[in-house]
Amino acid sequence: MVLARASSRSRTVTEVKLADAYYSQEIHGPYETFSLGDFDLEDGGKIRNLTLAYATFGTLSPKKDNAILFPSWYSGTNKILELAYIGEGRALDPSRYFIILVNQIGNGLSSSPHNTPAPFNAAAFPRVQIGDDVRAQHRLVTQKFGIENLELVAGGSMGAQQTYEWAVRFPDAVKRAAPIAGLAKGTAHNRLLVETFIEAIASDPAWDSGWYADRSAVHRGLRRHARLFAASGFSPELFNAAGWRGLGFTTADDFVRGFAENHFLPQDPNNLILLASKWRDADVSRNTGGDLEAALARISAKTFVIAIENDGFFPLQDIAAEQKLIPKSALKTVSSPWGHLALFGVDAAYNERVDAYLKELLAA
Amino acid sequence: MVLARASSRSRTVTEVKLADAYYSQEIHGPYETFSLGDFDLEDGGKIRNLTLAYATFGTLSPKKDNAILFPSWYSGTNKILELAYIGEGRALDPSRYFIILVNQIGNGLSSSPHNTPAPFNAAAFPRVQIGDDVRAQHRLVTQKFGIENLELVAGGSMGAQQTYEWAVRFPDAVKRAAPIAGLAKGTAHNRLLVETFIEAIASDPAWDSGWYADRSAVHRGLRRHARLFAASGFSPELFNAAGWRGLGFTTADDFVRGFAENHFLPQDPNNLILLASKWRDADVSRNTGGDLEAALARISAKTFVIAIENDGFFPLQDIAAEQKLIPKSALKTVSSPWGHLALFGVDAAYNERVDAYLKELLAA
Repeated sequence: MVLARASSRSRTVTEVKLADAYYSQEIHGPYETFSLGDFDLEDGGKIRNLTLAYATFGTLSPKKDNAILFPSWYSGTNKILELAYIGEGRALDPSRYFIILVNQIGNGLSSSPHNTPAPFNAAAFPRVQIGDDVRAQHRLVTQKFGIENLELVAGGSMGAQQTYEWAVRFPDAVKRAAPIAGLAKGTAHNRLLVETFIEAIASDPAWDSGWYADRSAVHRGLRRHARLFAASGFSPELFNAAGWRGLGFTTADDFVRGFAENHFLPQDPNNLILLASKWRDADVSRNTGGDLEAALARISAKTFVIAIENDGFFPLQDIAAEQKLIPKSALKTVSSPWGHLALFGVDAAYNERVDAYLKELLAA
Repeated sequence: MVLARASSRSRTVTEVKLADAYYSQEIHGPYETFSLGDFDLEDGGKIRNLTLAYATFGTLSPKKDNAILFPSWYSGTNKILELAYIGEGRALDPSRYFIILVNQIGNGLSSSPHNTPAPFNAAAFPRVQIGDDVRAQHRLVTQKFGIENLELVAGGSMGAQQTYEWAVRFPDAVKRAAPIAGLAKGTAHNRLLVETFIEAIASDPAWDSGWYADRSAVHRGLRRHARLFAASGFSPELFNAAGWRGLGFTTADDFVRGFAENHFLPQDPNNLILLASKWRDADVSRNTGGDLEAALARISAKTFVIAIENDGFFPLQDIAAEQKLIPKSALKTVSSPWGHLALFGVDAAYNERVDAYLKELLAA
């Protein structure tokens, strides 16, 4: 389903040049916005008039006891979360829950390098941490909706990083947590991998230290970045089985261009680099002076830690090591030839298994 | 031991600029050379006065029945093969065997883009395939030494690709074969990975389509390439356990720079790209019209297919799938946190296990 949509909105070069056509209500909406005014950041900077974009599904109950928060992952928006995870009869069922899909800072819909007015735009956009996102999301949840307790916070990849940060920072507000395919504190290997993603874009001379006039000029860097993402984001088995044939791709090269490059080419290079720097630096132990055990021990939510086996970004054993440090938690695993990028919702078996875990958790 | 040497020859920027100081007898010797005259290539090109550099250890028996051939891997030369695999009491024991370590075309000691005179130098160096290497090596073995039967052909990574090509192309000349951590035919995923290595160098504007005047100017591309190599060449566990501490490195970044960047920075970008293109295109089924089963069925050598578990370049399951197609073969596995790059000889447990396999094979 997600792919059908992706295909129907494939773009010509001319369309890509319409800089903000991509980050639009037409493609990613409907979404709403919440303005937080000036927002001080952990690393000392400030975002002027921070705006969070979000989409909601379902109806908040009078007791406000049916809310689920699902933050976005790297390069994703509320739209792909909706397509991949929400539906009648699914775990995230809008006939039962009030589901808030929130776009993280820098993803192009919420405040981001590309949509911030000069002089704080582009390369001058300040440094942001996952903790900033979660503090801002907490204000959205409490001030906009008056919700004090979330039935569930869940998310994949960088969404898992935000989920962990929520559970550590606001333990009383999170009844259940489901970090999927992500870590509370990045490993040295994961940081190296993310650095290579950043370098793939930043090495393009057209990037110009972030001061490009036309983001489509940075397409070589974006393509390289997409190819690195594909090389470790999908599993080798997917390539062996040509698992993309059902989506209409013909060869491995056709798939990597048609899926991975197609996904990243219309996005803003500075936005991606900002997101990647948050990914690289994510670490809940920033809340506890560097003590990861102490940070994870703070979590009071019932937690299902969900890992994708053979995930090339976040290996199962790293996820399992953190799970052991979380009091009321269980490790749940799911296998997919799509590797980390099964998150995108392209594998029906993955969707079914993760839905079952989330249903079990919500019923607990 | 290898690392101690690497450390003792760490270089200043000035030294790196002495273009051929790296590819020298002083660093990689002693080695000898064998000239083959003009050599026609599979893809239609020609190398003028093809020269193979090689080093030998031990004494060839009067019956010429104690010879072992060990071709070089990507970015390696005879020197690292010697340091990592040869020694009294080891499988490759020079008191017992006559061991030929041969440098593949393009590695900087044998004919290569950087050491070929104009006009066929640098970016004009012709396209080479693994089959070209093996035909040239066959002439070295038969014409220079008069050897008709090799007791063993063994090699790691691209050395495994050459080992497979030997066993398929010259089955009567190969009594035993030990391809280590490599495939007879690259998978689509492996080709994608190697493409990202090539792009990491070729994307550096200083590379200038291969026409750089000074290879040290391409250091940004070489560093990016080294970081990609480290991100999938070593296992995530190595980073978690800081397994490099015993080698004197302090942090993950210090290790990646001091080990991986240090290894690649003095090398020639065009040489590396030529080697990588051979790696990418390696496929023994070129000998059988694309039929991999038919190609592997030609192998008459007793073969130990050795795989490194959690190898990020050549996954165990891909290696195992090929092994099943080789008549007189067995799959042998070895585990190392160093991942694919355990090949370098840095892990004593790996060295011991592989030695045991090679001894068992040589005794058979």
